[in-house]
Amino acid sequence: MVSSFSFQAMTSKQFSTPFRARQERLRALIETRGVPSILVTHLPNIRYLTGFTGSAGVLLMGPRQGNLWVDPRYTLQARGEAESVEVIEEKEGILKGAATWLKKNGVSAVTFEASTLTYSHFKLMCKETGNSVELRPAGEMIEELRIVKDRGEIDAIRKAGIVTVEVFTELLPQIRPGVMERDLAAEIEYRMRKKGAEGAAFETIVASGPRSAYPHARSSSKALHECELVIFDLGAILNGYAADMTRTVFLGEPTRRARSLYSAVLKAQEGAIRTVQDSTRTGDVDSAARRILAKHGLARYFTHSTGHGVGLEIHERPRLGKGETTSLRSGSVVTVEPGVYLEGYGGIRIEDTVLVGPDGPEILTPAAKNNWIIS
Amino acid sequence: MVSSFSFQAMTSKQFSTPFRARQERLRALIETRGVPSILVTHLPNIRYLTGFTGSAGVLLMGPRQGNLWVDPRYTLQARGEAESVEVIEEKEGILKGAATWLKKNGVSAVTFEASTLTYSHFKLMCKETGNSVELRPAGEMIEELRIVKDRGEIDAIRKAGIVTVEVFTELLPQIRPGVMERDLAAEIEYRMRKKGAEGAAFETIVASGPRSAYPHARSSSKALHECELVIFDLGAILNGYAADMTRTVFLGEPTRRARSLYSAVLKAQEGAIRTVQDSTRTGDVDSAARRILAKHGLARYFTHSTGHGVGLEIHERPRLGKGETTSLRSGSVVTVEPGVYLEGYGGIRIEDTVLVGPDGPEILTPAAKNNWIIS
Repeated sequence: MVSSFSFQAMTSKQFSTPFRARQERLRALIETRGVPSILVTHLPNIRYLTGFTGSAGVLLMGPRQGNLWVDPRYTLQARGEAESVEVIEEKEGILKGAATWLKKNGVSAVTFEASTLTYSHFKLMCKETGNSVELRPAGEMIEELRIVKDRGEIDAIRKAGIVTVEVFTELLPQIRPGVMERDLAAEIEYRMRKKGAEGAAFETIVASGPRSAYPHARSSSKALHECELVIFDLGAILNGYAADMTRTVFLGEPTRRARSLYSAVLKAQEGAIRTVQDSTRTGDVDSAARRILAKHGLARYFTHSTGHGVGLEIHERPRLGKGETTSLRSGSVVTVEPGVYLEGYGGIRIEDTVLVGPDGPEILTPAAKNNWIIS
Repeated sequence: MVSSFSFQAMTSKQFSTPFRARQERLRALIETRGVPSILVTHLPNIRYLTGFTGSAGVLLMGPRQGNLWVDPRYTLQARGEAESVEVIEEKEGILKGAATWLKKNGVSAVTFEASTLTYSHFKLMCKETGNSVELRPAGEMIEELRIVKDRGEIDAIRKAGIVTVEVFTELLPQIRPGVMERDLAAEIEYRMRKKGAEGAAFETIVASGPRSAYPHARSSSKALHECELVIFDLGAILNGYAADMTRTVFLGEPTRRARSLYSAVLKAQEGAIRTVQDSTRTGDVDSAARRILAKHGLARYFTHSTGHGVGLEIHERPRLGKGETTSLRSGSVVTVEPGVYLEGYGGIRIEDTVLVGPDGPEILTPAAKNNWIIS
């Protein structure tokens, strides 16, 4: 369904607010699929559709109306933020409130978000609707819509990308032997905030030496040493939207091994980015990166997928992994982040957030990749 | 089952590591309840039982053994971190890996964590086990164990509390008209990091003026003004454990109204803290706070529950809300945080993290509450 909305159509002024436009896109999708109302429980989806940023809420999107149940903590906030939906304060459990409403209003069937609703909440819905409402598991329909970003979303990610790049560039002079990983991470997140970000989109990774071989290492109290690789994985979140970037540096004069590894990963990343085009299958971006690393005999050290969508969530659809068949669309925003990890030695990963623009890939995290040697 | 373990017993050196001890407590609980193996999918529970800190994993705890499935990103890390379990690398989906193992090993029944496993994952398990394994929804057994903290956990929360208090106390001179909410939040989180915290346990709230009437306001670009209430809700996370504290200040000479509101909330908080004792029902802590606010005619402005457990998660069991019947135990750690919120005017909340100690309540976030007037 996403495919019937072109990048142009979505950025038109057809609807007065992006939220109303998104709700209309969802309604069109619902109608196309013959789906009844949808019960939205995944918070990023609620934010996407209404603008409500609270940490608890249940949204029911019907063919003509939308209801948002919130608990009393969020009543004022929801009334201020949520667009084109009726806000209902519910003291005795928001999911129960929604269930009662469905029953009272004689709704015969509703779809729910099967990949985020918990088993317990599903059972609660069954109980509270007294089985008078058919509960149908749905695929990730709203996540599908979110694969193509509208203009406001792209602007938000672009801004998050700029903050991310600025912070990393400003940090470069502080990257030197003796500094603790976690102090650099603290500095990164502080600077993000000072530049207007809500904060870091995820726990900033600074991983040095052998620790850089852990793709998801936490920043530790380890100090940086001469002749070590250091991975920085960072991203600001701004107005709810995230950017995601990784750079790897070497402290001192790199060995031949480090140079050849870095060069191979960079080639793999740049090669994969070139494939980030409208209609490219996500699995083909992944295999582009993998093929280049294989040429350098490094395929087996690349132990994760090539990337993921990024937006309201740091990891969202589409996944850029082996055999994935989802196609990129103009307006998709994804990461491209091949890496190699050698146990006991270290790791190298290079990552950018990339927009599928009308003229091909546009890097939204344009920090230099050739200044990786810090001497 | 938790009740059969006293605070003393749990801090004994009966087991060589806290993780093994926790696994043994779970096994005892499983045996008591006649539960077969338990499939643990909630990550804080996996961390609690094994020490593994990764962002993806599935743990099967049987009567005699434990298996931890991780994807290749986490193999090295899991082998380094996880105690007393076998780490299994799984490339084709960790939940599927666990399901296949259950089927292969002829396991006839397994319980799962119904309040966190999604409906989709439940269905995946059904499919992959080919219905040869009975899947039984379980209550929050591990969360129950976690209600009583062991010595290492209490030490960790205590340290997180000290960092939280130090940071707030150091920040006081910077709280003045003209400063932006979000800059103060950035400063708070930076100082937490510099003091060794992994970061903030949640997005730090700095909410001033009318915004303080939103119990979960985000820190914004609004500047603080003279004659405003400002709420600070902050907590460091250290070695995986969180603290949680709120202080409210007034910039300038408080009006009579602000003084009487502050005094009422403080009395409610202190009164509720006095009830935080071994065997007190959590609902009674809540009603203590509510009763005191009612005396001041403020009950209807207290729109949330009085507190929650805190530990590996910022919100965990038990809930300190109306009518809750769970009893506090020696070793429980909870927040006590009454507040009043007046739309258009502002809010006041005072919160501490409190340990149920052998000699009664111990405040783990001992920042002053009487220096709330900033002139």
